[in-house]
Amino acid sequence: MSEITSKTNTGRFFEDFRLGETIVHATPRTVTVGDVSLYTALYGTRFAVQSSDAFAKAIGYPVAPVDDLLVFHIVFGKTVPDISLNAVANLGYADGRFLKPVFPGDTLSTTSEVIGLKQTSGGDAGIVYVRSIGRNQHNEIVLSYARWVLVRKRRPGTPAEFELVPELPKSVAPEALGEGCPPLHPAAYDDALSGSPFRWGDYRAGERIDHVDGMTVEEAEHQIATRLYQNTAKVHFDAYGARETRFGKRLIYGGHVISLARALSFNGLGNAFHIAAINAGRHVSPLFAGDTVFAWSEVLEAAEVPGREDVGALRLRLVATKNLPCNEHPLKHADQYADGVILDFDYWALLPR
Amino acid sequence: MSEITSKTNTGRFFEDFRLGETIVHATPRTVTVGDVSLYTALYGTRFAVQSSDAFAKAIGYPVAPVDDLLVFHIVFGKTVPDISLNAVANLGYADGRFLKPVFPGDTLSTTSEVIGLKQTSGGDAGIVYVRSIGRNQHNEIVLSYARWVLVRKRRPGTPAEFELVPELPKSVAPEALGEGCPPLHPAAYDDALSGSPFRWGDYRAGERIDHVDGMTVEEAEHQIATRLYQNTAKVHFDAYGARETRFGKRLIYGGHVISLARALSFNGLGNAFHIAAINAGRHVSPLFAGDTVFAWSEVLEAAEVPGREDVGALRLRLVATKNLPCNEHPLKHADQYADGVILDFDYWALLPR
Amino acid sequence: MSEITSKTNTGRFFEDFRLGETIVHATPRTVTVGDVSLYTALYGTRFAVQSSDAFAKAIGYPVAPVDDLLVFHIVFGKTVPDISLNAVANLGYADGRFLKPVFPGDTLSTTSEVIGLKQTSGGDAGIVYVRSIGRNQHNEIVLSYARWVLVRKRRPGTPAEFELVPELPKSVAPEALGEGCPPLHPAAYDDALSGSPFRWGDYRAGERIDHVDGMTVEEAEHQIATRLYQNTAKVHFDAYGARETRFGKRLIYGGHVISLARALSFNGLGNAFHIAAINAGRHVSPLFAGDTVFAWSEVLEAAEVPGREDVGALRLRLVATKNLPCNEHPLKHADQYADGVILDFDYWALLPR
Repeated sequence: MSEITSKTNTGRFFEDFRLGETIVHATPRTVTVGDVSLYTALYGTRFAVQSSDAFAKAIGYPVAPVDDLLVFHIVFGKTVPDISLNAVANLGYADGRFLKPVFPGDTLSTTSEVIGLKQTSGGDAGIVYVRSIGRNQHNEIVLSYARWVLVRKRRPGTPAEFELVPELPKSVAPEALGEGCPPLHPAAYDDALSGSPFRWGDYRAGERIDHVDGMTVEEAEHQIATRLYQNTAKVHFDAYGARETRFGKRLIYGGHVISLARALSFNGLGNAFHIAAINAGRHVSPLFAGDTVFAWSEVLEAAEVPGREDVGALRLRLVATKNLPCNEHPLKHADQYADGVILDFDYWALLPR
Repeated sequence: MSEITSKTNTGRFFEDFRLGETIVHATPRTVTVGDVSLYTALYGTRFAVQSSDAFAKAIGYPVAPVDDLLVFHIVFGKTVPDISLNAVANLGYADGRFLKPVFPGDTLSTTSEVIGLKQTSGGDAGIVYVRSIGRNQHNEIVLSYARWVLVRKRRPGTPAEFELVPELPKSVAPEALGEGCPPLHPAAYDDALSGSPFRWGDYRAGERIDHVDGMTVEEAEHQIATRLYQNTAKVHFDAYGARETRFGKRLIYGGHVISLARALSFNGLGNAFHIAAINAGRHVSPLFAGDTVFAWSEVLEAAEVPGREDVGALRLRLVATKNLPCNEHPLKHADQYADGVILDFDYWALLPR
Repeated sequence: MSEITSKTNTGRFFEDFRLGETIVHATPRTVTVGDVSLYTALYGTRFAVQSSDAFAKAIGYPVAPVDDLLVFHIVFGKTVPDISLNAVANLGYADGRFLKPVFPGDTLSTTSEVIGLKQTSGGDAGIVYVRSIGRNQHNEIVLSYARWVLVRKRRPGTPAEFELVPELPKSVAPEALGEGCPPLHPAAYDDALSGSPFRWGDYRAGERIDHVDGMTVEEAEHQIATRLYQNTAKVHFDAYGARETRFGKRLIYGGHVISLARALSFNGLGNAFHIAAINAGRHVSPLFAGDTVFAWSEVLEAAEVPGREDVGALRLRLVATKNLPCNEHPLKHADQYADGVILDFDYWALLPR
């Protein structure tokens, strides 16, 4: 006698979120040098601090820290089964702060607090705002960020019981930027080995940099990456199911685009070794396998980090495009994003002074 | 002056196997956190015990053990050059027992004993039964399983000298299921972190679970996986040679399907963290790149493990399909496997009580 | 106010190289077990010494050394942004010597000395000869090799100020072959575990070995490999830009072919565990995704290594083809390479005696 039961996770709908509740996400994850190698192999990232134990030790780290975006993707991946399995769209990020370096051997886990709820005018979905917090095995916060997603309602038309749109900063204040970076010895920071002669003081607000190179993405690559992060969003993996969707094919995880663009940005920003904060991020348009990603950056602001003589911060807008070289720095026409733009990402990076 | 010699391995034919002989397979392999990362990236597996050192330590492991199927694939891969290079088909598995956990840093090697030989009626091939045993660097057995394969004869028509069909159990007895699992502290097993509230006592024989998600497979993925296991079966790698074969293209290693289905089964069986035994396995039909794999499970039996209060065992039938969602639990029509079914795998899993 | 600046690396042109200058290349790289796993997964290499800590320790290594070609690719990758970003062609290698084993945890960095310059008759490019040296974190040389590349001139027609073609040995002398290999205990070298009964004394000059198996290459695979080596040559990654090139598609890194052929050569040369030297190498013709690689070897010379009773050296010509099985050992017709030949690689390997 067979009995069909439902022990599978169907994900939460808009009505299932309660303001103020904290969700403990599944599958803690020990980050290892294996993950670091895969991250290098998937993006070709070349920042010396994350690439070399010897380089990292010389400037003050105990060993090479794990790439900040690898930390982000792992912390983020855990939230998917609980937050965004029934999401229509990932709307934005704010107030992301990297607060402790992560090293191989650390175990990451994630919780999310529901910090806002707002139904849309159509009534069949609502916006869920969460603050997700990644911690290491010592229960220290390594990453904190806010995200909001458009989530389907279980029963379209149900009115929301509470509505609250949280206040989130447009950008993280410079005071908060140094926590994820130990005190460094800038004199020991070797510009020949790092691959760029340009330090913090060499960049100016308004400066634009075309990162020149293009990187074509394959299905196997983004699937391998997204599974590495234990991100289960089915749109990235199920070509059979995707036939019936708007695009007719698998969609590439937005975080994959961020990592590709960041790796390309080494060419021009080779000393911007640490992402201290994520101010905002928008996935303007989807990326598909076979597309080629290009990127450019604009320096939005240069800031001292209070109390730090070793490093300074650059607020950078990182723009990624598909099948469109960035020598003309494409962004917007009037208020519309230009064709080909896929990512508009606003973050703070630290550079040695 | 050139001389053409034959130092290459042409594999054994049916006549080359002797009943009772033990074959020492080549290439011992140290399993590392690099392999673990690749395994995660290839399948997206999310069982907390194997994913997190912190979680594993809390319940009683020294560190996170290596996924049982990764151990299986590595132990199995070594047998290919000696056992199945001239195989026509992999017919079955039985009496597979995982007897010691494997941890990163352990070195695995494999031997196989020929435990049965039987020629087929056609006379151009025969069935070879082997018991393959994987050992760690301390010479401790970590895995033992029986397998039988249809192997071509060197000279079709040669009669077999001996014939013996070994007796193999239909399923492994519950007494043998605890050896690969140290004593655990079920109270320290955190269901929020593991991702499932369902423990051993929550499952009933007869219960069926659709694992919902689909995973599309790419050529690069199965090749990377199969090479990781140092499995040299050329049908998986040589598209040029495959043009002349029945399918005209590369075949995906059957073990890749088992791992995909097992990873999908997390959704519904999130606490079935350890494969204690493989009772039987059949690759019903081949998988090719581009296909999307779905899976469902049936609980065949729930058993206590003698002497263990910490864990219980579920005997599970894991069925995988291609391009066929499993909400209707497809398996057989009359005695024939239904179209789309590719794997029928019978195993024992342990869950915390 | 935006300002467009040029902080990106545009690479050196022929005129930018000065005879005798030493270039320090960017991005030191700690090699880990993660890299080793990926290397295994990308090529399926099975040499026991590099695969097993237990095997390596038994014969005299502290742990399993990193595959020599993985070391080569990482050391080589660092030179690309400085040496060959504007290269038209990679012309050759000589005098490559592996001088210290590399172990997981070692950090590699590379410098190159310009040892020769020669303009071509056309006047729009010139040949740059460099000696590249890879060092570990103790500043010990692990690899030294000469390479020459055809590099575009910034201003076609500019005459070269100096011209010097360096003298390079046709092959590395046997005296230099033992440095990368510690003293071994050949009695502890287990031929069953290594997968080949043939030791150094079993090979004869003139002997040819077809390695039989074929390996089809996917775009995702060669991109993952080439990024793992932090090799930034855009021809391997940018399908969009490649549309306008002679081939219309991405080119596979030549080193990927060497590693594929070397891994295939295990079948026939299973005890040739260490590459001691690279005498010469020519990428005869390009490889593209979808092609299937085959390989064969010729023993050019067998030599004792002075002072060593434990190992002997074979000078091997390793030939790779695409979409062409090697049972007839294709190489040249008259003086022309035969159709399908893609690699002609001359190296010294060590085998136990």
